[in-house]
Amino acid sequence: MTQRKKTKGQLIVLSGPSGVGKSTVIAELMAQRPLYFSVSYTTRQPRTGEQDGVNYNFVSRQEFERMIADNELLEYAEYVNNYYGTSLKVIREKLDSGMDVLLDIEVKGAAKVRQSCPDAIFIFMIPPSFEELSRRLHARNTDNEDVITGRLEKARQEYKEIPNYDYLVINDKVSNAVGEIESILTAAECRVMNRKNIVEGDYAL
Amino acid sequence: MTQRKKTKGQLIVLSGPSGVGKSTVIAELMAQRPLYFSVSYTTRQPRTGEQDGVNYNFVSRQEFERMIADNELLEYAEYVNNYYGTSLKVIREKLDSGMDVLLDIEVKGAAKVRQSCPDAIFIFMIPPSFEELSRRLHARNTDNEDVITGRLEKARQEYKEIPNYDYLVINDKVSNAVGEIESILTAAECRVMNRKNIVEGDYAL
Repeated sequence: MTQRKKTKGQLIVLSGPSGVGKSTVIAELMAQRPLYFSVSYTTRQPRTGEQDGVNYNFVSRQEFERMIADNELLEYAEYVNNYYGTSLKVIREKLDSGMDVLLDIEVKGAAKVRQSCPDAIFIFMIPPSFEELSRRLHARNTDNEDVITGRLEKARQEYKEIPNYDYLVINDKVSNAVGEIESILTAAECRVMNRKNIVEGDYAL
Repeated sequence: MTQRKKTKGQLIVLSGPSGVGKSTVIAELMAQRPLYFSVSYTTRQPRTGEQDGVNYNFVSRQEFERMIADNELLEYAEYVNNYYGTSLKVIREKLDSGMDVLLDIEVKGAAKVRQSCPDAIFIFMIPPSFEELSRRLHARNTDNEDVITGRLEKARQEYKEIPNYDYLVINDKVSNAVGEIESILTAAECRVMNRKNIVEGDYAL
């Protein structure tokens, strides 16, 4: 489908339990449409294979607390004794240039973005089943059994926040989840309020 | 993309100026996904090539007024001295069976549906330009110049109703318009409120 010109990008917030496959879906989505993925800041240690500036911007606790104090963050949260947060400046620039911006943040951070950016698109991604989530966490081979048990318990808590999201996407298959998110983004572009410039401008009767 | 099972269909209202190409877009959409097109009732004369029960259910003024009196219509309106209306019974059955139902109705009828079915999806379709709309009306070769002038003036009036719709679709090219409507319908299926059964049922953690 033809991409139509836009005056302002859309802010998309994606949440979902650890292990649901957000990274894979995001990578596939970015291969299919212009999209800026906002790399979060964190104080946690990199996992094997994670790169600074790609998966996260890894910073010290001291540096993170300076960013909090200087109001440089759109949202931040502490989770399993580490800070996770999103820088505001880059996001603003991208949105103003007409680029869609995707944030991969957990439910507490999403709640904060909902307060400051109610027009953002809030998507929650779930696995097809609890058993499948457990299988994916084990297959990832990065966490011990206690950490996995903690992540599964955390997932149950996160599910309670689903009613606060706009959309629920099921990652039973990457292509399904990507297709659903693509449809959600295209539909959002078609909203009357996002096409005011069209009715009043180029396409006016 | 895999079609997921649904418990209830969605009601979709499509409006747009005469000549914008709604019929062509609807036919293409129905070829691509399960969709019930609600055939309207009208008291106007069939145009060349129009079939009773396909394009419209053509009925007498007397019969139409009986349907009004018996509350058989979801909405109806009078337009250029003819009645146009939508039967409620068939729509209810289709929606309950999980089928999406599309109504092609003008702005007055849509306003009535909005009152009784606020959860329906309201889509307005526009041509890429006024000149193009005029060209399409002439190419259709069914109306004289006075009727076309009337339709164009009517289109200008209808545009004032766009802010009451959820989505604006541009029919510059049939495949674009169909793609946008498909995305709108898929996104609607992904709304959290439409997937409650998923979170609480088969996909529950």
